[in-house]
Amino acid sequence: MGVIVQKYGGSSVADAGKIQRVAARVAATRAQGHRVVVVVSAMGDTTDELLALARTVSKDPHRRELDMLLTAGERISMALLSMALHALNVPAVSFTGSQSGIITDGAHTNARILEVRPVRIFEELEKGRVVIVAGYQGVSREKEITTLGRGGSDTTAVALAAALDAEVCEICSDVDGISTADPRVVPAHRKLAELSHEEMQELAQGGARVLNAQAVEFARDRGITIHARSTFGAGAGTKIQRSTQRELRVAGVAQDTDLLLLTGARDAVLPVLDRHGAFPRELWADGAALRALVPLENVHGLPALLQDLRALPGVEVEEGLAQVSVVGAGLGASREPLARALRAIGIAPRGVLVSPLRIALLVPRDSAAACVRALHKEFIEG
Amino acid sequence: MGVIVQKYGGSSVADAGKIQRVAARVAATRAQGHRVVVVVSAMGDTTDELLALARTVSKDPHRRELDMLLTAGERISMALLSMALHALNVPAVSFTGSQSGIITDGAHTNARILEVRPVRIFEELEKGRVVIVAGYQGVSREKEITTLGRGGSDTTAVALAAALDAEVCEICSDVDGISTADPRVVPAHRKLAELSHEEMQELAQGGARVLNAQAVEFARDRGITIHARSTFGAGAGTKIQRSTQRELRVAGVAQDTDLLLLTGARDAVLPVLDRHGAFPRELWADGAALRALVPLENVHGLPALLQDLRALPGVEVEEGLAQVSVVGAGLGASREPLARALRAIGIAPRGVLVSPLRIALLVPRDSAAACVRALHKEFIEG
Repeated sequence: MGVIVQKYGGSSVADAGKIQRVAARVAATRAQGHRVVVVVSAMGDTTDELLALARTVSKDPHRRELDMLLTAGERISMALLSMALHALNVPAVSFTGSQSGIITDGAHTNARILEVRPVRIFEELEKGRVVIVAGYQGVSREKEITTLGRGGSDTTAVALAAALDAEVCEICSDVDGISTADPRVVPAHRKLAELSHEEMQELAQGGARVLNAQAVEFARDRGITIHARSTFGAGAGTKIQRSTQRELRVAGVAQDTDLLLLTGARDAVLPVLDRHGAFPRELWADGAALRALVPLENVHGLPALLQDLRALPGVEVEEGLAQVSVVGAGLGASREPLARALRAIGIAPRGVLVSPLRIALLVPRDSAAACVRALHKEFIEG
Repeated sequence: MGVIVQKYGGSSVADAGKIQRVAARVAATRAQGHRVVVVVSAMGDTTDELLALARTVSKDPHRRELDMLLTAGERISMALLSMALHALNVPAVSFTGSQSGIITDGAHTNARILEVRPVRIFEELEKGRVVIVAGYQGVSREKEITTLGRGGSDTTAVALAAALDAEVCEICSDVDGISTADPRVVPAHRKLAELSHEEMQELAQGGARVLNAQAVEFARDRGITIHARSTFGAGAGTKIQRSTQRELRVAGVAQDTDLLLLTGARDAVLPVLDRHGAFPRELWADGAALRALVPLENVHGLPALLQDLRALPGVEVEEGLAQVSVVGAGLGASREPLARALRAIGIAPRGVLVSPLRIALLVPRDSAAACVRALHKEFIEG
């Protein structure tokens, strides 16, 4: 039988008992005859705890050293999971990102995978072992340890699934698949049985934190089916796969409340963002003038970033904004969906972005939840 | 100026505040013009906490995975120390054992350093950076991560000092140098200003936990002076250096209460010990019969070891023993010191070992402290 890649998020390996339950789940998959590669995140809040320590010793932690620090988290969970498998008499071996051949660029705290060379993984699978891989981390060509940013373990899993020609890439978490909106914001949300890669990408771009955007991009490019499902629950989950969808349909609504809007001179702004590990998610450049929407999830020293940005002459920094998005095939193909969206939210947005699969509206952060509910009602419940 | 290697133990980097104080100490050394290489242990009780987690998921944790797990500890402390130095505007870079070129054999949880290839360390020192190295860990020629056993960070420091031709290797801890006996056991102990490598080795063999035995062996072989001193205190510490001592003098008294005495067939016993990462400290073989004194400090699953040993036919396992030692030049050169030692302890020992620099007596564990005090009184206070 073929290879299955299973990724377990931080809440699935949050303590010793959960690690033992994950070990039993992995052992069961192996007992069905599959060759199993497991990708793990750090246990529970480990990453946040390490970040808090870093901020105690330095207001603006050095990014190369942050990567060195944070990669300790997956090292701990992967070794414990391997021990737990050995305790069930399942042969297993754990590998760091570097040992797994996850080669990235050198952008510390937000690196991109350039290549996967899973030589040692293949060798161990051949010996009948379960291979456990540290998610979220890699190594640059200069042999520096890097991390892939928030949700990077998903990217590790999909990149490995592609390199190993896996049957499926299961992303296991405490949530059973993808919903039409964040359940905490929209009580009327519903579960999606399937979704196209492109729709999932736009939801992630729009702020849905269920799956990492680069992970979905990888899966789309290589045609890999991602199965998002619950680690300990029995639900069917959501399959993210190649779509044959042609007509308009709305997949979901997303929001991102953790961002900055910058306007000013491009040449001045981009080097500062780069130095702090921040990269614009959306960027409109008009000659030398730039407007950029910057997600803050991979920024590890916000006060220092704000200080540096505000020191630039002619650059305006706006906090307090949120982006709400409606995602679905055909949404950007005509004027009518945008008109419906604007009518639904009932306020004038600070900005609008329309792409083939998404309508995004910049609104005040404290209106975001109401806008999400209004859009969900208009496009999904209606 | 030349290179100084400074090693900081776990209690010196136990929290963020202490790490910042160590950073200031390192910065001060660099400000004097030295090139500084810093070796760090894991923070405070991190190693013990990780070991406890391992025992929760597995009664007999897999040794390769234990090494993967435990090396996360130094990774955390080294990255934090580097960040704290950056916060003081001191350029610094942290390296794992593997990145530092610490090549070991493949004996997981108790590996020996075979070779040091500090290519990257040299490069960074040339750039004027402080280099921080994860103590206690290395990499085998098969690219597996290994650890050096309890106190292994000392060995890392001395091996680096040798490879970098350092002026001095400072071993900084919460204790100001070496005493004639464990202060908790012998109130009348006193501090030693200097000590020969050989005497220090025998004290370590005898159970003194201040410095690792392999570290002292390395220092002796390469003629490196170790300066054992307090991290935050102002004391002069103890220098461990080449000796020109010729006449009898007693350096100190040590005890080891964490050991097993085994008697039985050699061929049966040694493979079992090896499988559990245990190696005899002293071993008397007489044909196929063996008597072995086994230190337990690097055994990570004692119940499993005992079970396997007791399953061997004809092998006797004795717990509850301690070894007390008097160490000094010339002690083994005549019968008189042994006679004095036996008279001092006043009980018949279970075994006696005399080597050129040491008299070791096996006694019941609950008599050990009294024996240590009696020997200290006889040889040092008298």
